[in-house]
Amino acid sequence: MILIGERINGSFKDIGAAIKEKNQGPVQDWAKKQTDAGADYLDVNLGAVSKSPEDFNWLIKVVCDAVLTPLSIDCSKLDLMRVGLETYRAVASDRALVINSTTAEDSKLIPLVELAVKYDGGLIGVVMDERGSPQDVDRRVELGAKIFATASEAGLSPDKIYLDPIVMPLKFMQDQGKNVLEAIRQFAVISDPPPHISIGLSNAASKAEERGLINRTYLIMAMAAGCDAAICNVNDVELMNAVATAELVLNREIYSDSYLKAFKKRG
Amino acid sequence: MILIGERINGSFKDIGAAIKEKNQGPVQDWAKKQTDAGADYLDVNLGAVSKSPEDFNWLIKVVCDAVLTPLSIDCSKLDLMRVGLETYRAVASDRALVINSTTAEDSKLIPLVELAVKYDGGLIGVVMDERGSPQDVDRRVELGAKIFATASEAGLSPDKIYLDPIVMPLKFMQDQGKNVLEAIRQFAVISDPPPHISIGLSNAASKAEERGLINRTYLIMAMAAGCDAAICNVNDVELMNAVATAELVLNREIYSDSYLKAFKKRG
Repeated sequence: MILIGERINGSFKDIGAAIKEKNQGPVQDWAKKQTDAGADYLDVNLGAVSKSPEDFNWLIKVVCDAVLTPLSIDCSKLDLMRVGLETYRAVASDRALVINSTTAEDSKLIPLVELAVKYDGGLIGVVMDERGSPQDVDRRVELGAKIFATASEAGLSPDKIYLDPIVMPLKFMQDQGKNVLEAIRQFAVISDPPPHISIGLSNAASKAEERGLINRTYLIMAMAAGCDAAICNVNDVELMNAVATAELVLNREIYSDSYLKAFKKRG
Repeated sequence: MILIGERINGSFKDIGAAIKEKNQGPVQDWAKKQTDAGADYLDVNLGAVSKSPEDFNWLIKVVCDAVLTPLSIDCSKLDLMRVGLETYRAVASDRALVINSTTAEDSKLIPLVELAVKYDGGLIGVVMDERGSPQDVDRRVELGAKIFATASEAGLSPDKIYLDPIVMPLKFMQDQGKNVLEAIRQFAVISDPPPHISIGLSNAASKAEERGLINRTYLIMAMAAGCDAAICNVNDVELMNAVATAELVLNREIYSDSYLKAFKKRG
């Protein structure tokens, strides 16, 4: 399971303030805390706090200074993404990379696939396009296949392609849970070996009361369907324990009576 | 989700002693506690404590006196099963019934299917035969298809047929988790509408340290694959909360902020 820590995002108050004040303390604390919790990647996103390339470069460098964990460079603006990737490769030339994210629209997909090839990174492809987010399985699979084909033709191997079926809030779009699970099952047979299948988990429990329970139940069900990556709260101990246990059931981690501890120290 | 409470079983010390002493207190306490927790059926099994028809009749009557919850009559001996079913129908003629269980061997399958037809009950078919428990997916599906075909031909509708893929202890047969999930997925397309798919959950965590966590993770993954029934510890609150949440994700229970309470009171 590839766990991408969601916490270094300007949308969180403490990180938003840290970006504005160029205060590296909270950023580096979260970089360390998420790494200690077992994050495989740290997502780095300015959120709505800033669109400045200087701020993005600062944020990326501050995280790279604190830990050796690879980054998921997260940005919806193409120009800012270019700058961020260049900075990341300048300070961490040999670390793994995930680019978060493209959609299936050509105007985003084509340049972002090029960047993934150029920087030897994984690319998350969210199955939406100019028509918005799909409400059914077929459209999700159609857009996933388009992203996969475009990325493959440009030279990305399946293990560099992450398809994201778009998790929607259970509270407001409850009928989409089943569709997401079925889309995951179909993504898993798009190619052999399959691409990675990644979800933005925290959206599932948006505005709900039982957030932790909903998040971990949703993620485990997604894992049973074939999901092998998630952007999530890696500091949620119950979530991590659930993931470790699902990995056991899938025979991807070896059973020992202390498997929960072993999972945290994996990789 | 069809939840079958596992607790009225002579293998548990208190129930074993109660059977021997003809002490109805502990039996009726568990009947009520499991009913309050939301059990759809109560499994009733003498365990190894007794093979006496009188004891089985006593146990069934004592449970029927305490609650209106339907029973899962659980017995591996055909003669004892006949007696138990007759008693249950005598004291609870209009309640639902599950017969637990047959295997795929003709010598068991044929008479138990007949009993299910005769008593208008559901029948759990465990996918093993004289050769033992399968270690792979194909043999599970082959035996499941045999059970389904035999039961269908005798007149049982799909909603009366429960296929059980045989959950094995993660600690000792870790590679079987994936096979069970895949067998569940294949059972779910054996017919349209599909049969029920039921698991004996507690076996998953046998001798493991993290029993509760393993049980609820396993069950949720099985539900994502298509499992819609389980014999389990319905008094495990965290397990029930996980099941309620999985039902939400599958859009089988309606979201409300208090869905956990609503789930307990369903049906």
